[in-house]
Amino acid sequence: MRIEVINTGTELVLGNTLNTHGAWFGRELFKLGLRIERQTTVPDGDAIRESLSEAVSRADVVIVTGGLGPTSDDLTREVTAEVLAIELIMDQAVLTGLEHFFAIRNRPMADANRKQALVPVGADVLPNPNGTAPGVYVPPRLNGRGHAAVFLLPGPPRELHPMFREEVIPRLRALAGGEVAAGCSELKFTGVGESDFHQGIDARLAEIEGLEIGYCAHVGEVDLRLIGTEEARAAGREIALAEFGQFLINEDGRSLEETVIRLFAAKGWTIATAESCTGGLISSRLTDVAGSSAVFTHGFITYANEAKRDVLGVDEALLQRHGAVSEEVARAMAEGALRVSGASAAVAVTGIAGPGGGTDEKPVGTVWLAWAVKGGATKAIRGFHPRNRKDFKLAVSQGALDGLRRLVLE
Amino acid sequence: MRIEVINTGTELVLGNTLNTHGAWFGRELFKLGLRIERQTTVPDGDAIRESLSEAVSRADVVIVTGGLGPTSDDLTREVTAEVLAIELIMDQAVLTGLEHFFAIRNRPMADANRKQALVPVGADVLPNPNGTAPGVYVPPRLNGRGHAAVFLLPGPPRELHPMFREEVIPRLRALAGGEVAAGCSELKFTGVGESDFHQGIDARLAEIEGLEIGYCAHVGEVDLRLIGTEEARAAGREIALAEFGQFLINEDGRSLEETVIRLFAAKGWTIATAESCTGGLISSRLTDVAGSSAVFTHGFITYANEAKRDVLGVDEALLQRHGAVSEEVARAMAEGALRVSGASAAVAVTGIAGPGGGTDEKPVGTVWLAWAVKGGATKAIRGFHPRNRKDFKLAVSQGALDGLRRLVLE
Repeated sequence: MRIEVINTGTELVLGNTLNTHGAWFGRELFKLGLRIERQTTVPDGDAIRESLSEAVSRADVVIVTGGLGPTSDDLTREVTAEVLAIELIMDQAVLTGLEHFFAIRNRPMADANRKQALVPVGADVLPNPNGTAPGVYVPPRLNGRGHAAVFLLPGPPRELHPMFREEVIPRLRALAGGEVAAGCSELKFTGVGESDFHQGIDARLAEIEGLEIGYCAHVGEVDLRLIGTEEARAAGREIALAEFGQFLINEDGRSLEETVIRLFAAKGWTIATAESCTGGLISSRLTDVAGSSAVFTHGFITYANEAKRDVLGVDEALLQRHGAVSEEVARAMAEGALRVSGASAAVAVTGIAGPGGGTDEKPVGTVWLAWAVKGGATKAIRGFHPRNRKDFKLAVSQGALDGLRRLVLE
Repeated sequence: MRIEVINTGTELVLGNTLNTHGAWFGRELFKLGLRIERQTTVPDGDAIRESLSEAVSRADVVIVTGGLGPTSDDLTREVTAEVLAIELIMDQAVLTGLEHFFAIRNRPMADANRKQALVPVGADVLPNPNGTAPGVYVPPRLNGRGHAAVFLLPGPPRELHPMFREEVIPRLRALAGGEVAAGCSELKFTGVGESDFHQGIDARLAEIEGLEIGYCAHVGEVDLRLIGTEEARAAGREIALAEFGQFLINEDGRSLEETVIRLFAAKGWTIATAESCTGGLISSRLTDVAGSSAVFTHGFITYANEAKRDVLGVDEALLQRHGAVSEEVARAMAEGALRVSGASAAVAVTGIAGPGGGTDEKPVGTVWLAWAVKGGATKAIRGFHPRNRKDFKLAVSQGALDGLRRLVLE
């Protein structure tokens, strides 16, 4: 089944807005075992005509986003009807819904909004609970110019994403028939690279019948996606975990920080952080999680040596003897954060983010991480991430959070 | 001049990698007064043939990224030569360069790399100091199938971006002749929305001859781009600053956090932060800036009330009487951070990020910000950003950093 995606929006081609639709559709379709053969971005207005005409002549499914609004530049509905040689009619139910949308918000409905109720004759209206523009589905039998099924969907992600899940996926499954994969599993790993997977298990995964695999690599994280029947996915999962099980973050699609917060919350434990080189990124990631206030209580960003000494009670002699980036100081920071905060566990990081500050012995990218727990022994490890400043911070925060996760599991 | 961009890469259509090329090209071309008429993404391999054939039949300039590597899926060079009906020859100078690239890295050159030295006869080789794949420029006169000029460029941004600036822009200027704008100015604002610009100055800017304007809106920031002759840009700048000058962050393209660090460093001042609802985002942004350790010394993330009390010395009675999200507590946090750190200035934020924790009096999105300075009066303002958790944090951090910037300027 050949699928093409067309994104309309002048802001996309001017670079004012990053087009995230392409990657998002790619991932969602891949989970169904489907692929995008071509993705096209065009400005608002009439430019869609040309690309839509071409796409419907080639593809089995064409998904168009954007251009369903009320302004004069929103022409997706009109151009699609013309290209597919179908008439547009005013859909009374949609019109009533639009009037209701404005009435309950106490706003007058502009005349321009009426055109949002225009629908190609016989097409399905896809409800939009999050905006004024309903989606449209034109099944292949209505297409007067080819065999393609056409979806018209709203541009804003918060309208598009729920509509895709509720209205588009079931129709794609029906269109694809046996082509759609039975399901998708996602396993997130940290502490291991994509090339380790290629060398370690790719060949064995390839031997499993009916299994497709994909990787999504981020800084400090590799997501392995297994697509296929339940049986094929189980076989793939077994191989992956036998080799890399110790690096598994989760299989539920959550972020590492959310996993940490949930694990700690379930135990009733609290966290404090003591950050030097990450400058608050670890605590910022933890507090991105709704409900993190039940777990995260204190964060100390001790960027200056005086802060390490005065706020966390790190011994000046340790700083002098070993330097701020050392196992001894990392341990003292973690234990200091634990003592000052009274939390159940504390993580500390101290390293050289660069571009300056490196030495032969401790080059840019060097970091020490330490974890202290109430009534337990403090652990420390050395890391080395010779990357740009932001990626260094991200990689270190990933290691720090993963260490917190392991504390709970051990 | 009609410009089309084709991005090749299976990882782009599978959604494993976000396609940032589209937006990046859009912005870079807009600065020259040029626009992308169509951007297409296709998987690696032969899929480029179809889209390239179509593009060269329509466009004046076609820019292709990706597919210049050594693997069997890297077919951009071969397909382009075929589509444009030009022969490929082995370029001896490129081959020598490739051999040198591997020799100085003490790595053997694979046979597969040899094809990276294939160049369409007569085309310009665009040097790539950052990778093995040189770019290619096929001027219109060599194109056997149309009038389009074709650029083949590497996919990785760190190779693509310098090559675009050094090699592509001068050729685009020559191709466009008078069409290319004289220059681009970018003014960054915070504390004012894009719609304020539309209502406030769009009509007046539109009257300036030879001036094109564009907006790029982020959370808590609007970038105004003025394109045109020096005279036209100066006239546009004058109107923008007369209306919104108090909201200007800078005109040099730097981030707000970098502006803050530079302003403080120039004065020899230091910063401490006291964060509740932003959870470390403010300090993380400050420490994203290389050299921030000369300015940022202490950060306190006092998420729990006990942390506000014990670490920053916020009076328990204040917390009881006014609640953690209040002007009084924000002021006490800022003053506490100043006292404990000994910094020149401190910023504090306390708010309700949601989704839980809101009340009728203090709904989700409410925040208090305060700034304390050595030997000066503490200031506080209330903000309201009813957004999702991450955008709330970002909007608050933007306000906090802008307040620091204003401290230096006042």
